[in-house]
Amino acid sequence: MKPSEQKKYSNIYEKERNNINARLEKVFSKRKPRSLYEPSSYIISGTGKRLRPLLVLLAAKSVGGKFDFAYNAAVAVELLHNFTLVHDDIMDNADKRRGRLTLHKKYNENTAILVGDSLLSVAYEYLLKDCNGNSKDILHAFTKGLVEVCEGQGLDTEFEHRRNVSLDEYLLMIKMKTASMIKMCCEIGSTLGGGTKEEIKGITNYGLNLGIAFQIQDDLLDITADEEKFGKRIGGDLLEGKKTYLFIKALEKAKGEDRKTLLKVIDNKGIRINQINKYKTLYEKLNVINDAKDSINYYTKRALKSLYVIKNENDRNTLIWLADILLKRNK
Amino acid sequence: MKPSEQKKYSNIYEKERNNINARLEKVFSKRKPRSLYEPSSYIISGTGKRLRPLLVLLAAKSVGGKFDFAYNAAVAVELLHNFTLVHDDIMDNADKRRGRLTLHKKYNENTAILVGDSLLSVAYEYLLKDCNGNSKDILHAFTKGLVEVCEGQGLDTEFEHRRNVSLDEYLLMIKMKTASMIKMCCEIGSTLGGGTKEEIKGITNYGLNLGIAFQIQDDLLDITADEEKFGKRIGGDLLEGKKTYLFIKALEKAKGEDRKTLLKVIDNKGIRINQINKYKTLYEKLNVINDAKDSINYYTKRALKSLYVIKNENDRNTLIWLADILLKRNK
Repeated sequence: MKPSEQKKYSNIYEKERNNINARLEKVFSKRKPRSLYEPSSYIISGTGKRLRPLLVLLAAKSVGGKFDFAYNAAVAVELLHNFTLVHDDIMDNADKRRGRLTLHKKYNENTAILVGDSLLSVAYEYLLKDCNGNSKDILHAFTKGLVEVCEGQGLDTEFEHRRNVSLDEYLLMIKMKTASMIKMCCEIGSTLGGGTKEEIKGITNYGLNLGIAFQIQDDLLDITADEEKFGKRIGGDLLEGKKTYLFIKALEKAKGEDRKTLLKVIDNKGIRINQINKYKTLYEKLNVINDAKDSINYYTKRALKSLYVIKNENDRNTLIWLADILLKRNK
Repeated sequence: MKPSEQKKYSNIYEKERNNINARLEKVFSKRKPRSLYEPSSYIISGTGKRLRPLLVLLAAKSVGGKFDFAYNAAVAVELLHNFTLVHDDIMDNADKRRGRLTLHKKYNENTAILVGDSLLSVAYEYLLKDCNGNSKDILHAFTKGLVEVCEGQGLDTEFEHRRNVSLDEYLLMIKMKTASMIKMCCEIGSTLGGGTKEEIKGITNYGLNLGIAFQIQDDLLDITADEEKFGKRIGGDLLEGKKTYLFIKALEKAKGEDRKTLLKVIDNKGIRINQINKYKTLYEKLNVINDAKDSINYYTKRALKSLYVIKNENDRNTLIWLADILLKRNK
């Protein structure tokens, strides 16, 4: 892709990101009670990538619709995403998110539970604003995404307490916990934009595969990112003993002493900071960093292949560009 | 109402309650992951009144629809109700609910947060099963109920930290926290049943006023119920320093020493067990128990008045009977 083209798509992204941020800022600014909506404003004013709302907009446009058809739905998916973040942060007992205090740390846990619930309720409210003749399809897709996110989170928690998790099980989990929402954004956008069945199917499939690649990339960044650009400590997943793509793949391949070393991560529910480099070296030895890269490439290719349904080259290239920057990201 | 008529309506209630229980039991029985849905089954298998789903069914029938049109929506509102109970119980740090361990006590808090979220997600899933041409109206009503429940809970929490709460503010809070969901059940049922605008409006108004009366009755029972039948300690609201209808009304009327006595409840964030009788006597002296009864009667009358829209006498009488037993209940 030419730099001039990249610049063009990057400008669309920045413009629409600002647009979405401006709309998000307004959602809670005048609602009452303030004790509920002031913390909601706090959480939504963070500096997220706004990937999910952007996908809703781009998917709507890619089938011949307008951004204007989909701004409320775009707000809805970002609210839904933030609902999952707020409740996940309580469950993970996380102190910080995107460099700021998590909601339950800034306020308290009760507030965070209720604000999460409320974000979800307002998400449905906004989604309904953009629904017309096709409201059942859109609400169905949104609700399916929500159900799967909960199930994925349930599976993820289950994996924490299990010794053996296969790569297939891991893939099922990330499909539900991460990819289902990315997929849903594409489905909702293309439905709102008035896409044909084939178009909606293709774009939804792009979202699903992009979402899988995105999560494996997330696992990979945890060990390969530049700590300064990444904004958080490298090896955090190992410290917590998380069963990531890299860890599961390594455990599948390792034998003898290497296997014993990896099993210690499970038995001790994580490692110590001074062990991170040792495990990174082991990952390199077992070649699982390259395996992860191969897997990211595989799912990315599948995502891009589905885009043949988009007739307008410019719209298609925007989605190709988005996949590209997501998978080249360093944070 | 003749005893034979009462028996007839009571039989409908019991039959449909069993029907709803059987349907609720099936909701989670085969879903995966079990780590998520086994606790969901636990919470939904409790012995609730199933008032909300019953209202959906009766409202559907009262406008000429069939129960069959509305069973999935009935399941949906009960799931939504249980979502609020699970999260409220965490926030209130409650140990027991209907004689059984609360979810976060039986499992843990993380499970309870996620199960609550999941109950809500499956609620939307079931609601969508019964939606057809009118899906937008139904989803709008359901979502409005959900938004208001969250806002009502936010207000309720806010009131805990405030010294002064007026009766109007209290009424606004219970309208949102309790009555909005009862109202929503009536709106959804009558919409699914194919009611006219006027019918839907009348039945929805019945629900709203019934819900207000129901909550004031709840406040009243806390101090006047027979402890054995009630199944929990009398005066629990006073122990926790809750700003109930009785307390706010008493504070409005009290002067001098009586006022000081009441303000101590706020300042000390509740009273001691051995003080309950003293406060009950004060409530009697200030006549607020009768005030509450008057208020319950007022809202009940308003509820029943709205039922003129129902043409079928039998259906109308079922809803009158339901209001009657709810407001004569002792638990």
